[in-house]
Amino acid sequence: MEVQQGLHMNGGNGETSYTNNSKFQELGITKAKPLVNRIISDWYSTNLPRCLRIADLGSSSGPNALLVITQIIEAIDETCNQVNCNMPEFQVFLNDLPSNDFNTIFKTLPAFYEQLKKEKGEKFGPCSISGLPGSFYERLFPSTTIDFFHSSNSLHWLSQVPPIVESNKGNVYLAKMTPPSVLKAYLVQFQKDFSLFLSLRSKEITSGGRMVIIMLGRRSEDPFGKEGYVLELLSKSLNDLVSEGLIEEAKVDSFNLPIYMPSSKEIEGIVCVEGSFYIDQLEIFDVNWGASDDDDNKEFVFDRFISGQRVAKCIRAVSESLLASHFGDAIIDTLFSRFMEYVSEHLLKEGKFVNFVISLRGK
Amino acid sequence: MEVQQGLHMNGGNGETSYTNNSKFQELGITKAKPLVNRIISDWYSTNLPRCLRIADLGSSSGPNALLVITQIIEAIDETCNQVNCNMPEFQVFLNDLPSNDFNTIFKTLPAFYEQLKKEKGEKFGPCSISGLPGSFYERLFPSTTIDFFHSSNSLHWLSQVPPIVESNKGNVYLAKMTPPSVLKAYLVQFQKDFSLFLSLRSKEITSGGRMVIIMLGRRSEDPFGKEGYVLELLSKSLNDLVSEGLIEEAKVDSFNLPIYMPSSKEIEGIVCVEGSFYIDQLEIFDVNWGASDDDDNKEFVFDRFISGQRVAKCIRAVSESLLASHFGDAIIDTLFSRFMEYVSEHLLKEGKFVNFVISLRGK
Repeated sequence: MEVQQGLHMNGGNGETSYTNNSKFQELGITKAKPLVNRIISDWYSTNLPRCLRIADLGSSSGPNALLVITQIIEAIDETCNQVNCNMPEFQVFLNDLPSNDFNTIFKTLPAFYEQLKKEKGEKFGPCSISGLPGSFYERLFPSTTIDFFHSSNSLHWLSQVPPIVESNKGNVYLAKMTPPSVLKAYLVQFQKDFSLFLSLRSKEITSGGRMVIIMLGRRSEDPFGKEGYVLELLSKSLNDLVSEGLIEEAKVDSFNLPIYMPSSKEIEGIVCVEGSFYIDQLEIFDVNWGASDDDDNKEFVFDRFISGQRVAKCIRAVSESLLASHFGDAIIDTLFSRFMEYVSEHLLKEGKFVNFVISLRGK
Repeated sequence: MEVQQGLHMNGGNGETSYTNNSKFQELGITKAKPLVNRIISDWYSTNLPRCLRIADLGSSSGPNALLVITQIIEAIDETCNQVNCNMPEFQVFLNDLPSNDFNTIFKTLPAFYEQLKKEKGEKFGPCSISGLPGSFYERLFPSTTIDFFHSSNSLHWLSQVPPIVESNKGNVYLAKMTPPSVLKAYLVQFQKDFSLFLSLRSKEITSGGRMVIIMLGRRSEDPFGKEGYVLELLSKSLNDLVSEGLIEEAKVDSFNLPIYMPSSKEIEGIVCVEGSFYIDQLEIFDVNWGASDDDDNKEFVFDRFISGQRVAKCIRAVSESLLASHFGDAIIDTLFSRFMEYVSEHLLKEGKFVNFVISLRGK
């Protein structure tokens, strides 16, 4: 199944929505902020365009999409004050799959514009924010029309579940027991997808335009690193439901998540072979997924239960659509309740995801 | 109250949705098709841009939005065949208020693209369709970025209910008993809104770009023409509900629809005074709202009940959001059931709305 048909972050504003469970992703964006600001300021002060055209790919429906845009507008505002020029016009595209809940984010736009006008005064505008539904593994924009591409927490999603011959028995992602052929299928799919992504964007980016990608990855070359451990706990929870007769074993064996967490060497290799871009900078940092938003708070007291709940809700918000379409809606609550227990039990404070921030330039 | 906060066509795909009750609007678009095709072909073959940038203002969520885009793509395809050139890229913006149901139309896009690729082959694309939430009484696009503006069945909506001093007792729109001050307030509001609309678009349209507006209007200079009769029946239905104690009289007296159906002279006057555009062509035609989609079918047998039901559903799909926010959801079913009876009773086959098709050029 193509991911386009099944994947979407949970919509709306409810308890299980992505909107209310995207703190982890927010932290990644915040950590990448100094780099994004430096890149956008450098680019802007060199080019001084009348209108700055930005695309956020895989923006989803939560507050993070507008967080990135706010951050970019702030950086441009500061740059304009420094170089003593007027603010440009802004044209922004929020892209995600057609099944994404665009309505929820669109309804917040009038208040967003109001706030910007209040802060920046009459010199600000027009700022034109559109939603562009479509897969970033296809063409999205007309040729040479985007100055700055941004994508966070999206490019580890593959275009499809890799075509697998041997079964990845009892696992939903790469794990120690995964057969080598499955591992290879995942890597090949990622190489194909990421390469296609770069090739498509190279047609859409303006001359000298910039791209920043924030995505999950792994530190070591070992494909079964601890970065995938949280997904092993998801597999474990599904296997429990098999033991209890709630789902069929074959159902679990045939389910694999269309995700890949590459190493930095894998990324560098693909960028080099594809050839349209070069890597300006690649930073790696950990996001403490247990403690999440209290990462820098020294007085923070770690609470297994609260952390487990937060991680479970976050994983649910991004994966529920795929799990529900394969296993049915009925088991979702039970599954994530079990998953939360495992996460609380096994998760130590040092449980971390690894985030890459990759800054690219067109050749 | 500003219309931006309260108005939206009924969302989703259900029985009362705009999607399933916009045949009347479709007929207007179909009747305007030859003119739109001629304008877009003329413009395209003169300019031959690499990318054609189109905005549909007030596109709503129904099939009509994509109908217009399909029609434009067809016209360009024919023109390309005639002048023997490659198809351009397309960048399309579907605009409506932020409360519009964009999700429903976005979900239909993958099938829409698939169909286009099948019909046009590999020469076609990329075609980039975005949703742009915002009021067309504000800036929507960066400067000089749209080649062709299209708007159907939207510009008779005012930006707000006109500020009224005297009460328009028992009526929701202009009627014979409406005080002259109310009539004047409506006209002034329309002049202000339409003039602002033209001024905003003149900043966004490319040099030599074109605009086609399809909207409700009236044939005579008499402001109480038969064109508003269907809204008199809506007032009558509300007044019945007052007699039956279901709603308060004061509630009806304080409700006015933010709609205005201008005469062609009024339109011409505003375009002339505002000064950014000139009228290339203004066509007036009737849309038979009783018989709707069977207008050209000679064997069609008029059925009061079916026609009444169709008209009632159509008016409900466009006005329910405003009526429900003023009178509450509870009375909506009763109101439209009564309204349907009146329409079936009073509506003769010759009951018609008057549509204007206005083609404008930037100066």
